[in-house]
Amino acid sequence: MKSLTEHLTFNLPVRMGFLNITGEVESLVRKSGVREGLVLVNAMHITASVFINDDEPGLHEDYKAWLEALAPFDASPSRYKHNRTGEDNADAHMKRQIMGREVVVAITEGKLDFGPWEQIFYGEFDGRRPKRVLVKIIGE
Amino acid sequence: MKSLTEHLTFNLPVRMGFLNITGEVESLVRKSGVREGLVLVNAMHITASVFINDDEPGLHEDYKAWLEALAPFDASPSRYKHNRTGEDNADAHMKRQIMGREVVVAITEGKLDFGPWEQIFYGEFDGRRPKRVLVKIIGE
Amino acid sequence: MKSLTEHLTFNLPVRMGFLNITGEVESLVRKSGVREGLVLVNAMHITASVFINDDEPGLHEDYKAWLEALAPFDASPSRYKHNRTGEDNADAHMKRQIMGREVVVAITEGKLDFGPWEQIFYGEFDGRRPKRVLVKIIGE
Repeated sequence: MKSLTEHLTFNLPVRMGFLNITGEVESLVRKSGVREGLVLVNAMHITASVFINDDEPGLHEDYKAWLEALAPFDASPSRYKHNRTGEDNADAHMKRQIMGREVVVAITEGKLDFGPWEQIFYGEFDGRRPKRVLVKIIGE
Repeated sequence: MKSLTEHLTFNLPVRMGFLNITGEVESLVRKSGVREGLVLVNAMHITASVFINDDEPGLHEDYKAWLEALAPFDASPSRYKHNRTGEDNADAHMKRQIMGREVVVAITEGKLDFGPWEQIFYGEFDGRRPKRVLVKIIGE
Repeated sequence: MKSLTEHLTFNLPVRMGFLNITGEVESLVRKSGVREGLVLVNAMHITASVFINDDEPGLHEDYKAWLEALAPFDASPSRYKHNRTGEDNADAHMKRQIMGREVVVAITEGKLDFGPWEQIFYGEFDGRRPKRVLVKIIGE
């Protein structure tokens, strides 16, 4: 069994934003030499997500508005008890649960085995600082 | 390490619906000959889900009503910017994030290692056309 | 390829609650002898979750209030058709979809490859009875 482990760092200049990281993951799959296996891609921070969806700017705006409606940003400790700790990011912990922590993708014949529109995104909900994503590849 | 890759195709005659695909996945686990390992089952389309829950028709009706309340279908471009592209399925991209893209299931002694009520479903949120699901099995 | 399979049992004395199970998973990773691989941790019941987030009591209270607002408990069969079967836990099936069934975590140099705040939780939405969690480790 072969394996490859890489930790990527992203620093988005906004509180909430999405970054297409498909190219980075594809490069690591090639580097691993794995022909048949799995790749795990996960946020290492609990106010961020890795998810698969469409690279369409209008959809990303829709996601932001929808997540903001489901879990509004509110720095005050009155809405969210978590913000009594001095944090202001309780909403980000909720947005991340909706969008998910991780994706697991099949590697087939040395490539990400993707449908026509699948792209991997880093989803940031409490940005403006460096945060990490783990890529773990196993297979043969 | 053994591996097996299969792409299943489903065409649901409705916009939103759920299909129990546990039997198909079980057959592929047997075909793979894997005794100890993992199976990844994921939607290859970004307006569909694969998830594990109960095969109870009332619950499925509840899921539909709940998802429709959280992310209503609205073909107009006024609610969803994604629908300015000519699409009408922005809501489906949101419903899919709630229900998830994929499941990873343990294979133990050659079988899906399931609790008493776990069943694998294909979740369709923009149907009436053929769409694919990937099954990837690795192990020994 | 090495593998290890364990089924843990939890019995939370409340309807909804979260239990940090990181220590149990770490022990099993050590027991497995796997240095590079993946660990799958999943709820085996469809009204429970396994998820990764922060071990902060205020946040957990926020999660409970937020999930209750998104999918309120209502034993009557008027809100949820599932409860016409004699069950009272339709809401728990929805809360579990938000929080997720499973996590997949990388094992690197024999340890869970975690960010600074990542902790694994069992999430219970219909407790007061024993329920199981599966831990499956594969790698080398």
